[in-house]
Amino acid sequence: MTADPPRRRGRPSHDGTAPGPGTRERILRTAREEFSARGYDKTSVRAIAKAAGVDPALVHHYFGTKEEVFAAAIEVSMEPALLVASVLGRDGGGIGDVSDIGERLARQFLGIWENPATRGPLLAVIRSALTHEAAAKVLRSFVLRQILERIARELDVPDPKFRAELAASHMIGISILRYVIQVEPLASADPEDIVAMVAPTLQRYLVEP
Amino acid sequence: MTADPPRRRGRPSHDGTAPGPGTRERILRTAREEFSARGYDKTSVRAIAKAAGVDPALVHHYFGTKEEVFAAAIEVSMEPALLVASVLGRDGGGIGDVSDIGERLARQFLGIWENPATRGPLLAVIRSALTHEAAAKVLRSFVLRQILERIARELDVPDPKFRAELAASHMIGISILRYVIQVEPLASADPEDIVAMVAPTLQRYLVEP
Repeated sequence: MTADPPRRRGRPSHDGTAPGPGTRERILRTAREEFSARGYDKTSVRAIAKAAGVDPALVHHYFGTKEEVFAAAIEVSMEPALLVASVLGRDGGGIGDVSDIGERLARQFLGIWENPATRGPLLAVIRSALTHEAAAKVLRSFVLRQILERIARELDVPDPKFRAELAASHMIGISILRYVIQVEPLASADPEDIVAMVAPTLQRYLVEP
Repeated sequence: MTADPPRRRGRPSHDGTAPGPGTRERILRTAREEFSARGYDKTSVRAIAKAAGVDPALVHHYFGTKEEVFAAAIEVSMEPALLVASVLGRDGGGIGDVSDIGERLARQFLGIWENPATRGPLLAVIRSALTHEAAAKVLRSFVLRQILERIARELDVPDPKFRAELAASHMIGISILRYVIQVEPLASADPEDIVAMVAPTLQRYLVEP
């Protein structure tokens, strides 16, 4: 690697400057754990670097600012391309059947939350986004722009971004009541019972004119 | 008033022990401002008392613990009885017409958020509830139990509490995306455009079998 790399804002290409294979992934995994455990505000690049056993400069080298580390940690949790492809029913290139897109979106979304490996980072994003503008910006620019706009672009409805945001608002609200506030009976409900109720709503927002 | 009142957990009746008319209301209004400005965690009964110009013992006397002060500050903001009555279309005693309950609920809810006087305290509740268990408990026990259960009790659908929570999840998610994260175009949308899209969803959850 280059000696004493300066703080770079862009994400560098994987050009062999890493001290070893898997270092980047280890930093990301550590960052995700630190953000989940401490929240955005109380997590520093220095603390992430220490927990990952690397120099802080290397974290900056790979990811840039703390905000960019956070965005990368979220991105790796969400695997948005896979999510969007799955929701849109793609398995090659063309758009799939939209007749059950609401059901697929609801099931995919709850599946991510039911998985303990992804729930922690998502809780960290939501908690942080509600209290820190930097994290809110990540949610705005990443989750909403990348995921929702990609979905909206494929839809044939008026105001597709508005529609996609309404769908997202419902799913985010369910996450908050079920996983954060934990209200009953929603917190203990069978995910499929939620899918059955919510799917027609998402379907209407995303497909019906 | 009694000399040196002990910290009482219950809310005392208004039995004339106040040092002057309006004191209780002034404490409540101050509490709401303090919680809105600083969040649940950073607000103390001592700070509320100081800002209201009273002895901390008087705050405890009227409201009990900090958690109970918070609940009272929220309650006064929400005026739940009025909200429920309005949503249910009551103006005397019997339940009103449910054919447009979804529309009325959506409009009422957005109206509360569009009002700057109630938006601040609500933002404080949501932010606090996502980061502090005590505030989450207030949201669970107050907003959900008092408001939603009252609405659910009047409805004739299977699983009325589950249905009411799904409706609430949508409205809470919209608040978060519109007022906290401020995603566009949702953040700048005309409230009536939101009502038009969301009303059929709430109607289905709350009325249709």
